[in-house]
Amino acid sequence: MTAAQENHDMMFLSEQFKKTRAQTLELVTTLEKEDFVVQTATFMSPPKWHLGHVTWFYEVIMSKMNPSYEFYSQEYSKILNSYYQALGTPHEKTRRGIMSRPTVNETLQYFDIINKRVEEFLQNHIADYNLDYMFNLAFNHECQHQELLVYDLQHLLASAYRPVKHHVAPKPFSIEKNSVKISGGLYDLGYGGDDFCYDIELPEHKTYLNQYSIDVFPITNGDYLKFMDSGGYEDFRFWLADGWDQVKKNNWNAPMYWEKDGDLWTRHDFRGKVPINLNEPVCNVSYYEAYAYCKWAGKRLPTEAEWEKAASWNEQKQRKTLYPWGNEPISENHANLLESYIWGPVEIGSYPSGKSHYGIHQMMGDVWEWTTSDFVGYPGFQSGFAEYNDKWFSNQKVLRGSSFATPRYQIKNSYRNFFRPDERWMFAGFRCVEDI
Amino acid sequence: MTAAQENHDMMFLSEQFKKTRAQTLELVTTLEKEDFVVQTATFMSPPKWHLGHVTWFYEVIMSKMNPSYEFYSQEYSKILNSYYQALGTPHEKTRRGIMSRPTVNETLQYFDIINKRVEEFLQNHIADYNLDYMFNLAFNHECQHQELLVYDLQHLLASAYRPVKHHVAPKPFSIEKNSVKISGGLYDLGYGGDDFCYDIELPEHKTYLNQYSIDVFPITNGDYLKFMDSGGYEDFRFWLADGWDQVKKNNWNAPMYWEKDGDLWTRHDFRGKVPINLNEPVCNVSYYEAYAYCKWAGKRLPTEAEWEKAASWNEQKQRKTLYPWGNEPISENHANLLESYIWGPVEIGSYPSGKSHYGIHQMMGDVWEWTTSDFVGYPGFQSGFAEYNDKWFSNQKVLRGSSFATPRYQIKNSYRNFFRPDERWMFAGFRCVEDI
Amino acid sequence: MTAAQENHDMMFLSEQFKKTRAQTLELVTTLEKEDFVVQTATFMSPPKWHLGHVTWFYEVIMSKMNPSYEFYSQEYSKILNSYYQALGTPHEKTRRGIMSRPTVNETLQYFDIINKRVEEFLQNHIADYNLDYMFNLAFNHECQHQELLVYDLQHLLASAYRPVKHHVAPKPFSIEKNSVKISGGLYDLGYGGDDFCYDIELPEHKTYLNQYSIDVFPITNGDYLKFMDSGGYEDFRFWLADGWDQVKKNNWNAPMYWEKDGDLWTRHDFRGKVPINLNEPVCNVSYYEAYAYCKWAGKRLPTEAEWEKAASWNEQKQRKTLYPWGNEPISENHANLLESYIWGPVEIGSYPSGKSHYGIHQMMGDVWEWTTSDFVGYPGFQSGFAEYNDKWFSNQKVLRGSSFATPRYQIKNSYRNFFRPDERWMFAGFRCVEDI
Amino acid sequence: MTAAQENHDMMFLSEQFKKTRAQTLELVTTLEKEDFVVQTATFMSPPKWHLGHVTWFYEVIMSKMNPSYEFYSQEYSKILNSYYQALGTPHEKTRRGIMSRPTVNETLQYFDIINKRVEEFLQNHIADYNLDYMFNLAFNHECQHQELLVYDLQHLLASAYRPVKHHVAPKPFSIEKNSVKISGGLYDLGYGGDDFCYDIELPEHKTYLNQYSIDVFPITNGDYLKFMDSGGYEDFRFWLADGWDQVKKNNWNAPMYWEKDGDLWTRHDFRGKVPINLNEPVCNVSYYEAYAYCKWAGKRLPTEAEWEKAASWNEQKQRKTLYPWGNEPISENHANLLESYIWGPVEIGSYPSGKSHYGIHQMMGDVWEWTTSDFVGYPGFQSGFAEYNDKWFSNQKVLRGSSFATPRYQIKNSYRNFFRPDERWMFAGFRCVEDI
Repeated sequence: MTAAQENHDMMFLSEQFKKTRAQTLELVTTLEKEDFVVQTATFMSPPKWHLGHVTWFYEVIMSKMNPSYEFYSQEYSKILNSYYQALGTPHEKTRRGIMSRPTVNETLQYFDIINKRVEEFLQNHIADYNLDYMFNLAFNHECQHQELLVYDLQHLLASAYRPVKHHVAPKPFSIEKNSVKISGGLYDLGYGGDDFCYDIELPEHKTYLNQYSIDVFPITNGDYLKFMDSGGYEDFRFWLADGWDQVKKNNWNAPMYWEKDGDLWTRHDFRGKVPINLNEPVCNVSYYEAYAYCKWAGKRLPTEAEWEKAASWNEQKQRKTLYPWGNEPISENHANLLESYIWGPVEIGSYPSGKSHYGIHQMMGDVWEWTTSDFVGYPGFQSGFAEYNDKWFSNQKVLRGSSFATPRYQIKNSYRNFFRPDERWMFAGFRCVEDI
Repeated sequence: MTAAQENHDMMFLSEQFKKTRAQTLELVTTLEKEDFVVQTATFMSPPKWHLGHVTWFYEVIMSKMNPSYEFYSQEYSKILNSYYQALGTPHEKTRRGIMSRPTVNETLQYFDIINKRVEEFLQNHIADYNLDYMFNLAFNHECQHQELLVYDLQHLLASAYRPVKHHVAPKPFSIEKNSVKISGGLYDLGYGGDDFCYDIELPEHKTYLNQYSIDVFPITNGDYLKFMDSGGYEDFRFWLADGWDQVKKNNWNAPMYWEKDGDLWTRHDFRGKVPINLNEPVCNVSYYEAYAYCKWAGKRLPTEAEWEKAASWNEQKQRKTLYPWGNEPISENHANLLESYIWGPVEIGSYPSGKSHYGIHQMMGDVWEWTTSDFVGYPGFQSGFAEYNDKWFSNQKVLRGSSFATPRYQIKNSYRNFFRPDERWMFAGFRCVEDI
Repeated sequence: MTAAQENHDMMFLSEQFKKTRAQTLELVTTLEKEDFVVQTATFMSPPKWHLGHVTWFYEVIMSKMNPSYEFYSQEYSKILNSYYQALGTPHEKTRRGIMSRPTVNETLQYFDIINKRVEEFLQNHIADYNLDYMFNLAFNHECQHQELLVYDLQHLLASAYRPVKHHVAPKPFSIEKNSVKISGGLYDLGYGGDDFCYDIELPEHKTYLNQYSIDVFPITNGDYLKFMDSGGYEDFRFWLADGWDQVKKNNWNAPMYWEKDGDLWTRHDFRGKVPINLNEPVCNVSYYEAYAYCKWAGKRLPTEAEWEKAASWNEQKQRKTLYPWGNEPISENHANLLESYIWGPVEIGSYPSGKSHYGIHQMMGDVWEWTTSDFVGYPGFQSGFAEYNDKWFSNQKVLRGSSFATPRYQIKNSYRNFFRPDERWMFAGFRCVEDI
Repeated sequence: MTAAQENHDMMFLSEQFKKTRAQTLELVTTLEKEDFVVQTATFMSPPKWHLGHVTWFYEVIMSKMNPSYEFYSQEYSKILNSYYQALGTPHEKTRRGIMSRPTVNETLQYFDIINKRVEEFLQNHIADYNLDYMFNLAFNHECQHQELLVYDLQHLLASAYRPVKHHVAPKPFSIEKNSVKISGGLYDLGYGGDDFCYDIELPEHKTYLNQYSIDVFPITNGDYLKFMDSGGYEDFRFWLADGWDQVKKNNWNAPMYWEKDGDLWTRHDFRGKVPINLNEPVCNVSYYEAYAYCKWAGKRLPTEAEWEKAASWNEQKQRKTLYPWGNEPISENHANLLESYIWGPVEIGSYPSGKSHYGIHQMMGDVWEWTTSDFVGYPGFQSGFAEYNDKWFSNQKVLRGSSFATPRYQIKNSYRNFFRPDERWMFAGFRCVEDI
């Protein structure tokens, strides 16, 4: 690597660092101090904690590369450790909302101090693969928490939250067909590029697929209402046994955040309590609900390989692309796609330029999509960063795509998100496939 | 009642109202906004909630006297209702710490607005018994919450809390005897005066006592350490069955807030983590621990009648007094007695002027004292204010006296405090009696 | 004591022992083996366990008097220890139903073997006070378990249980008055006789009572239905806070074992599912329900002193009696009173010869009666048999009288039964008093 | 189908029915009545329940084929329904141990009555595919419960259980190599034969495998002890996050049924408490423990496709076989293999004639083997018998092979067993694979 290249890479890391940090702060500019502190459910974390945790993660990264690195505060490290046993006993997740101290101001001060340390660190280090990998990991990590923060803000405040970004309503277009046939055979699953990716996206490996047809759009609120109206939540035959237990135990009768107002179904989100938009993808549903819908509809959920092929495969050129629309990063053309988190998922067919080579829409930027694939390592998996991903290889299902709250930087066809099958607080929906 | 008298009474109510409100605010002047919001245990409430609740209670009082009174906000009323079923479904106590809104500023604004409404209300009403009773109830209610707030601030912040009052260390004096003999016979239990008291202090009624001897001082930390050092927490024989279950379940091995630092027992309180003062009354112990100590010591806890007679009876004049030291309100002479909550209970024999006619010390102003009496109504009990006291007539033990955090206004020999036998977060200790 | 007296006493103990043991076996003669084994709720115990436990208790008694006594089996001792910490760690109560071994036959064999040991023991010991006390304690203990066994058989089998005793239906008589006035003043509470009593019935001591009036009959099913029909279970105003929590949590809407069959209330008991008899005392109600009824009726529950005076005091002769009807043991005249447990409580006024000197009926032999008195030691209490009674001095209410399942041997005006206020599985009802 | 063929088939069904029923009874011949009744853990069922349930399942089968079939008893049907929502609300599984009735004799009577009904049913029906399928399903179902019954008897009685079968100790032979290399490429996963199989074994479908090497023997107790001795249970790095939670919560430090006796590890099983046999496969371990062992050893668990290919593929003939040793049913030659459940898994290399074409030993008849494969339907899955298998398609891992308690009739290379990853009460072990 030449000095010029090195310099270039360091510039890039430094630029990306600043952007990422600014984006985090932007999400909390309109909060009151009190909003930073509370934990409204065991699955969410106080905004103050997210701010501290992503900051602390840079300290972890620096300490991995420089063993003599001294953490800012032992107490902060203890509180801000999410689940890394190697870094001490993490503070219990369900008790993140009982700490008034460090205060918001102290947390922001910590945020700034570590920013300075990181910039110095970047200036004083020679660019090598490891540096690049480690900081890219940290940026991606921060992006993940930006998205979690948006989920948490919905739970905490819903209509009282006002982020600074503004949504430009896209124009829907008319739909030609409902599903697309995908051919079978061997497919190379996983990341095949040269840039950063998580360990769980590797290695790229062969998998055999039967032919199948896949929906051109995610299931919409309108579709889902038909399932509800035909008694979907009352008929055990559509449900997995564990799903039916959840339905009974939690009295589920609609997606999370839905509320019936007289005869009208409404939804609590950042716009307040608004009537359901029938054309938007259904959101905040568990794996169990996705599964039940599919069984009701006589279809099934895709495997992650089926989803990825539908998003990646360019039949004409017989090769994979990084994004559904190709290999070029997200352009202005479909920028809105990924910056709409003020409002929520967009309508059917709003972004024709974002469709895949097979003509499949909304695979990115609306809702994460449940697959039937268990979250385990690919054949030949090698752990990248200890305790980050592989210790979660049980009881989780893979979700693919991205949601309207996913930062652009994070998006990739090969990205594997994962949640437990009963979780509903994230922006997750689904689309159906059928055997042919 | 003459107009002059009426005017005088209104003046008194108005003055007392202002004092009480100011005292509440004084307790929170040194808090950060974040401190107002969190709930660190299910038994405590966020300071913000206390502020709102005592304010809302004046709204309840006004609505009881003026049926057309309109509450400031339905939403606030729902959140700030502690447990009054008649006033709607109360917000679940364990979930008081999940609300960032109303903010602290909004709560303080509410505090001020209701202050103005109360003052107007007092100016526009003719003084009658009911007005007097209702507002005295509200003042006493607010005093109770001031004390609870201090308990909660200890749990929330302990050494990080800095109230504005300052403690003047009293001079201990030498002790002459350990216990005093009290004669038996009929005793009139309960409040016998003309001023405000709670319904549960009435009616004054005869009760028969055997003779007994009672400790001149509450059990001290030094006494309690002997119990601990002789294996008190490991020997089931001293414990009630339910108490032993708590010891095992919670791994109790010392009073709450105690922590062993090497060989030294320390205590977390508003002074930080400080070594145990052997001469201070033991504090933050449950009924079970008090009971076990007494059994270990070959003694027993008093009944509430035994405690009250020891505090009230003037053997010479053959009549009861309002306070241990007589009928005059707390004078400057023993003022400190009741304004020491910055630090904690005072040392043995620090306030000789506060002793009872029998020569018993520290019955007021240090720690509440557990009695074996079940909290039930006195014979002939009539409910005063619905759902305030009598719905708690089960599974609670009576405590007598007052703690260093009890506002002066609240103190009285006949006052009946009550907690469940496993609770330890309040400033409770005990003294022993013996049959003769 | 002369040799003749001694011999007489030993004869008595030996006779009583045989009677008591036979009575226990009689209760289980109609059971299937499978019935002996199961535990249908955490509050009950398998019949096999009761058989073993009362047997083991004789081993405990013998070991207390003869330190070299060797227990039959260490394993049995562990399993059959109910709650005596001094005798090892008791087997967890909620797990008594998971043991198929020792089998029923092995348990009955154990029952017989210990019978022989006890009879030898009695032959070889000189009668002294201690022997007398210890064995009387064991007989009383076995009687207590006979009653608990009947409760448990109701829960386990209800209508499928067929004990061998038969009930002769008594003739009701007409009612003259509803309540009786009892004068106030000092009363000597507790046991004043020379025979065996439990430590908790001692010492007899003075207590002061205001005058009061007490119901001539326990509250009947008919009375209680009026409370239910007027919405008693839906109106928080009648309930203690802890009681209301139980109502909500357990969906209580009637006494235990009641079931609504169309418009008709029925009850599951040893007669099968039968319509409620309006004239029988209400049974299987908690303290909370008794309290709520009284509040609804504008009355209150008695204290245990009020109950005992009403049962014991002979106004004419100005002295107490052992039983409501006097000092003579239960005669043939009111024998049925106490041998009706096949069916349940009897009708209003069925046994006029069993009434107290004040003319109060059914104080013995129908249902235990809740009092407001907390279960604590009397003034001057001395523990008799460690861990038997006094370790339960918290969170329990005293019940007085006896139920249709209480063995005759056990019955006494001064007997203090105790249960937690939320328990309903025992045969408990109540009667009301009023201040005058 | 000719009449002769039909007759032949009916004969077969009738024979197999009798054999299966006799085998069930054989398992309980040595039990006491009390043993039939109790439920010693929420995951197990009382033997009486198993007897009733497998009997009731024949009623279900007959009712599916003959809509006018009348069930023997509505009450029995309710109690004996395991989890079929379509057949009414099943009795709660955790409460199977609270019922003493129907008694054991009544249950055995029911067993016999239904036997007669089935035999009549078989005589009166024309053999068609459905009949064949339905009864084969019922036989397989009963075999599954025979195995579960053995698990449950171990938990209930362990050393006190004495089945009637006897074990002939096999002769171990010397080991040549530890692992075998299996080539990669496309493999046809699933059942490819003509006889009965479960719906979840279908359809046979292509899957792509990388090459891998697989252990010749399951992990032995000796192997596992090395993991334990090197601190495996104390080091979070080897564990899945959910597994580590289980270790902490349940204080796992060895497989289930292991107990440390001084320095010696022992195991409770049907032989009593015996020292660990270092050469036997480790048994009663969870998926989490299997995973942790592999990670510690630098290896991994196989997928179910990897396991099946290793068991089925005849490299020479380039085709699959039904059993590891070929297509012929279990011969006398390796009969013991599958009838050893009195004692437990056998020693390394004890049955050379049972090895697979690749030379892999003990794939059948010792312990079920954990795979990383999530239990979901194969591509193209069609549900066979509603609610039997497919409603469990979440939160379960596939296990392959069979245990020493699996009835011969049940065994097949393509058989997919499934349990939750934290379950340990079944006879499950594992073997490792490595990427090459």
